[in-house]
Amino acid sequence: MSAVAATFFRSRWVNAPEGVEEIDPAQLAPGFRAGAVACGLKAGGETDVAVLACDSDAVDSALLLTRNAAAAAPVRVCRDECDRGAIRAVVVNSGNANAATGEQGYRDALAMRDAAARELDVEPRAVAVAETGTIGVPLPVGQVEAGVAAAAARLDASGGLGFAEAIMTTDAAPKLCTVRAGGVTVSAQAKGAGMIEPDLATMLCIVQTDAAVPDASQTLRDAVAGSFERITVDGQMSTNDTVLLQATGAAGRPLPDGLLEAVLLQLALDVVADGEGATRVGRIEVTGAATAEEAERVARVIANSPLVKAALHGRDPNWGRIVQAAGMALAGTQLPELGPEVVEADELGSDAPEAQIALRLERGDGAAQIYFSDLTAEYVRINSEYRT
Amino acid sequence: MSAVAATFFRSRWVNAPEGVEEIDPAQLAPGFRAGAVACGLKAGGETDVAVLACDSDAVDSALLLTRNAAAAAPVRVCRDECDRGAIRAVVVNSGNANAATGEQGYRDALAMRDAAARELDVEPRAVAVAETGTIGVPLPVGQVEAGVAAAAARLDASGGLGFAEAIMTTDAAPKLCTVRAGGVTVSAQAKGAGMIEPDLATMLCIVQTDAAVPDASQTLRDAVAGSFERITVDGQMSTNDTVLLQATGAAGRPLPDGLLEAVLLQLALDVVADGEGATRVGRIEVTGAATAEEAERVARVIANSPLVKAALHGRDPNWGRIVQAAGMALAGTQLPELGPEVVEADELGSDAPEAQIALRLERGDGAAQIYFSDLTAEYVRINSEYRT
Repeated sequence: MSAVAATFFRSRWVNAPEGVEEIDPAQLAPGFRAGAVACGLKAGGETDVAVLACDSDAVDSALLLTRNAAAAAPVRVCRDECDRGAIRAVVVNSGNANAATGEQGYRDALAMRDAAARELDVEPRAVAVAETGTIGVPLPVGQVEAGVAAAAARLDASGGLGFAEAIMTTDAAPKLCTVRAGGVTVSAQAKGAGMIEPDLATMLCIVQTDAAVPDASQTLRDAVAGSFERITVDGQMSTNDTVLLQATGAAGRPLPDGLLEAVLLQLALDVVADGEGATRVGRIEVTGAATAEEAERVARVIANSPLVKAALHGRDPNWGRIVQAAGMALAGTQLPELGPEVVEADELGSDAPEAQIALRLERGDGAAQIYFSDLTAEYVRINSEYRT
Repeated sequence: MSAVAATFFRSRWVNAPEGVEEIDPAQLAPGFRAGAVACGLKAGGETDVAVLACDSDAVDSALLLTRNAAAAAPVRVCRDECDRGAIRAVVVNSGNANAATGEQGYRDALAMRDAAARELDVEPRAVAVAETGTIGVPLPVGQVEAGVAAAAARLDASGGLGFAEAIMTTDAAPKLCTVRAGGVTVSAQAKGAGMIEPDLATMLCIVQTDAAVPDASQTLRDAVAGSFERITVDGQMSTNDTVLLQATGAAGRPLPDGLLEAVLLQLALDVVADGEGATRVGRIEVTGAATAEEAERVARVIANSPLVKAALHGRDPNWGRIVQAAGMALAGTQLPELGPEVVEADELGSDAPEAQIALRLERGDGAAQIYFSDLTAEYVRINSEYRT
């Protein structure tokens, strides 16, 4: 069992439904197979092209894509040229984001997708494409096409770990899990060591299940709202972020309530804990805001404050920085004086790797939580020196 | 002449009006005097209480205060209990922000102001109060009142440098200048090594002139919009930010066009260059946005991106990070592909201490510029370790 799998129920923050059994995370949900190879995009020779496919064409799917206005070519291809509700397969490369690469980049992403469709003998519009890596570098598309063919020739029901490894960039560890509950199986693989790390960019998450998920789009949206949309490393939105859910329905049962969100939240927390240079994870919970939206705005400003993130790193229970950030988020509104009595920040100063912080406003019933990593000298080093 | 004064026309970015003569920055504009003492707020015994007063009661003034909803006690006192258009004097302490200090903090700020009014024999409502330093620590008000009395007893027309030194917190150098143009004199003193550095917080700027400025409020607002509102160190809004303009009109002439903004911009650039841990200053200019507001939003997201700030530090001409941040700022809008042809980022990689970056959109005529500091390991060290 991988280190990631072992942490699945470590955090007290994860509210997984009862009766969830974790199994070998390399094992994909029934009906799915994956393969990965190295095609030479990564200088170190690590695997960098991967294909994951569903055996059946009776698949419900949903695809969430970054809203970044400078979206990468593969995101544009998925947006314009995929049947987002009937995705049979996904093809991914790591090492080249194929972002800011113009019309040629778009053609290259299409070619990569079409290569996968040919090898798998499925409709091109049933194949999603994702890429992650350096921005602004032309894709060596012939090399990638050869890699796609080789990866498609090695599909394996135990290919989850190989797939998760092949989509890594600056990640320190692969991020994946497979769980069973209520007669269904869910497997998922993610990558990301930041909301964005140009030029080694992006958060990707690919989820498979044999549950029946007729409303896949709304189901995925809700689960992401409670997981990947609750985290921040550096507040940066990627050009390439992609989340894909595929459900065969072969188990003849629905997803248990909360299972998908619990799986995605665990992977999201793995992304935060593996944030560039990160040594600690914080959780800020804001309650008593005027609305849920206001609570989220306040929580995000706190979670993205470099001063709060530095205090998390320095184990400094510096409640004044929470108050200052909250006041900034609520600029222009009339607030009663915010003093130490409305903030719980002691855990900032604890020895634990996780710190829970709370802010209680008295404006209404709005509440929100955000998980975030600390700001470290290592983050600065990674992002100012990695090219040299 | 101080190092600060010597840099007044160094930057090619400062568009000072012609015919401006810089004089000894310790010299205040005619009709103003200042004094400073150490009252013991700073552990090292540096000066920490200062008073600056206008000899005449025929003064026009304007006062801009932070919009932070957790505004400090002195900001609330200025907001509620000052004749903001007729400020005769200002009293400042450095070392204690008197923020998040509750009702007692408000009473202490009033007491500090009243002490200055007594010593100067002016109406309490004609005295502004500003404080900067640690958040959430009760003000030792008796000590400060004694300091106010001692400072008020040493008012001197050459007190500008002493005043600028007494309002410093984490600043590496005092920030001040005095200029003559068009028959008037403007002197100004500022402090700040970040938009906010809790617990050593705040940007303060105090400006004196013998020009006639009948519309002081609008004049100050316009000049600040072109200077202090064009900078960012860490994107954080302080609980204590205050800008004060006092104009006696004794010279019988108006302010030359652009003079006040040039003075404030120079001090603003000094604040950025002295940002916590900063080693370089960047300027991002966005043109071709749909509106000026959109241009400013895009410029701010770029200037506050930790990835762009780290690239500025690492001398990495990483144009992909400019594109990614712009795409994030414009999330949800339809953009043509942003490629290297719309970005000038070469100076990120130069040896110079200043780097000019440009982004050309093709959406309209909106333009904006923001100056920003780099993100360094030293910033992280200062903000995660200074309490230990």
